[in-house]
Amino acid sequence: MIIDCHGHYTTAPEPHNAWRKLQVAAFNSGTPTPSYPAISDEEIIETIESNQLRLLKERGADLTLFSPRASAMEHHVGDESVSAAWSRACNDLIARVTHLFPSFFAGVGQLPQSPGVPISESLPELDRCVNELGFVGVNLSPDPSGGLWNGPPMTDRSWYPLYERLVELAVPAMIHVSSSCNPNFHATGAHYINADTTVFMQLIQGDLFHDFPTLRFVIPHGGGAVPYHWGRYRGLADMLDRPPLGEHVMNNVYFDTCVYHQPGIDLLLDVIESKNILFGSELLGAVRGIDPETGQYFDDTKRYVDAAEVSEAERRAIYEGNTRRVYPRLDAQLTAAGR
Amino acid sequence: MIIDCHGHYTTAPEPHNAWRKLQVAAFNSGTPTPSYPAISDEEIIETIESNQLRLLKERGADLTLFSPRASAMEHHVGDESVSAAWSRACNDLIARVTHLFPSFFAGVGQLPQSPGVPISESLPELDRCVNELGFVGVNLSPDPSGGLWNGPPMTDRSWYPLYERLVELAVPAMIHVSSSCNPNFHATGAHYINADTTVFMQLIQGDLFHDFPTLRFVIPHGGGAVPYHWGRYRGLADMLDRPPLGEHVMNNVYFDTCVYHQPGIDLLLDVIESKNILFGSELLGAVRGIDPETGQYFDDTKRYVDAAEVSEAERRAIYEGNTRRVYPRLDAQLTAAGR
Repeated sequence: MIIDCHGHYTTAPEPHNAWRKLQVAAFNSGTPTPSYPAISDEEIIETIESNQLRLLKERGADLTLFSPRASAMEHHVGDESVSAAWSRACNDLIARVTHLFPSFFAGVGQLPQSPGVPISESLPELDRCVNELGFVGVNLSPDPSGGLWNGPPMTDRSWYPLYERLVELAVPAMIHVSSSCNPNFHATGAHYINADTTVFMQLIQGDLFHDFPTLRFVIPHGGGAVPYHWGRYRGLADMLDRPPLGEHVMNNVYFDTCVYHQPGIDLLLDVIESKNILFGSELLGAVRGIDPETGQYFDDTKRYVDAAEVSEAERRAIYEGNTRRVYPRLDAQLTAAGR
Repeated sequence: MIIDCHGHYTTAPEPHNAWRKLQVAAFNSGTPTPSYPAISDEEIIETIESNQLRLLKERGADLTLFSPRASAMEHHVGDESVSAAWSRACNDLIARVTHLFPSFFAGVGQLPQSPGVPISESLPELDRCVNELGFVGVNLSPDPSGGLWNGPPMTDRSWYPLYERLVELAVPAMIHVSSSCNPNFHATGAHYINADTTVFMQLIQGDLFHDFPTLRFVIPHGGGAVPYHWGRYRGLADMLDRPPLGEHVMNNVYFDTCVYHQPGIDLLLDVIESKNILFGSELLGAVRGIDPETGQYFDDTKRYVDAAEVSEAERRAIYEGNTRRVYPRLDAQLTAAGR
């Protein structure tokens, strides 16, 4: 089977988005938050069937790890309670999608991070996502400030309570920032890619996986700039007297295939061991158009992986085996369903 | 001939570095800055002959565009007057190198940028670099804050006075940040690469080259993450209703070849038109070690370019022609010298 490890509910029903606006407006004016609207199953089914499910089927994938719209996580908007209520609403919506389409979507949660608030405050929602909603993974922002980058690096001990719980729950984290309130950084064109690159370098500098040998991070968007500059990172590890990347980082870090042209995917698969690569498309996401050079959607990454020169065993690992290994709760769900 | 467009004086004589420490300490304690030390020609010759010149000859290049150590520019340290005095000292030292080794080094200047200070304050030093010291280019930091990114994007009109003068002088700018005071961003492993990516996306969003059709930027480190994600950038330009990159950005933007492994260089040369690529090695720079996989220096980028599958005409353009075109003052100097 073909598992897309990176999909977002970017087409959520309009009442959900409208409520978010009311929530933020209420926070800004100091008035009570209106209650969350009723959204029918039909509305959810319509937004999924006409978008993600249609494209998933057209492109030949079988299952998507599905999380709330990343750019809308906006941990920096409002305060801790705003982030908590919004995360809960977003995760509940994802859960409904997974219950309506259990064979096509598995849930990945949004954490109620908030700048300056201890990460331990996110643990109850993490627990709820995994234990009550049946989610198999979580998105974790390395910069809840939204482009100010005024928190500590991800190797800082202040993050450790979350890592302890992720390890306990056997849940990996996808490292994923949200929108940028810094005018220097376009969200999908700079902030996302920079965050991927930044965190990888933090992991080289630190010793996180010595402390958490079973913690697993998925760095999306093909690992940011890292595979293209793989020689630089190998050389920097050497200059900084860190162990080789293979043992220091790459037993715990995985890159997805959200790279939107054939040469980029070819480089990724050439440079990075196939065991560290998970198929992903960011569907429906950052780049929705059709590439005039190919006549195909930019984000139809399955075409690039299909065309890449790797063995069939490696391709199967990228499409399914690696993701089942990195997300053991997904594997258990699939196995229980006879898949 | 083979021109390396990206070299730094990372091996400056120790009295120069010691003076910088005294300068910053004097600023912090509010005492007068000690006078700049005497540095003999012999000291400069020794540091160059045993390092950059030795490696340049060993690797088979002919000339390096040589600028002050980028990580030491530190526009965020001290204030405007500290940045001005330090830039002047650094540029004077580069000028001495170019006078001692005129056939091997051409000067590229450091600007006395300072966070929050109008860029027009940098114009006198730019003029001095070009008109008095004979420099052919300049380094321009998109983030003089050193990793806080609290200034405006490079397409903002507050930068325009500098662009007007660069166009007048026929001098290109290499977009190059300095060290990072943000613990999230390792300088050479994250901040440099992120800045390259960030500025490219700003150029997509904006319309800078409509206003300055002859302005030229060199984005170093192989263009950051951009070539690896070329499909993403083409797709984002389309989504944002910007013109195709070829006409909107790539008549004015050039990437160097500071990518430290063969697959990265191969991708760069495959994806980006050869007219937009300038040979560079960052010598002596970010990554100084030997790649255990090849037995060669990571930053000996000429080996990768030599091994890449491009036509000889394209390789000659990358090694010489493009750089002479992008740096017309260099071309004039070389022509005058019969080269």
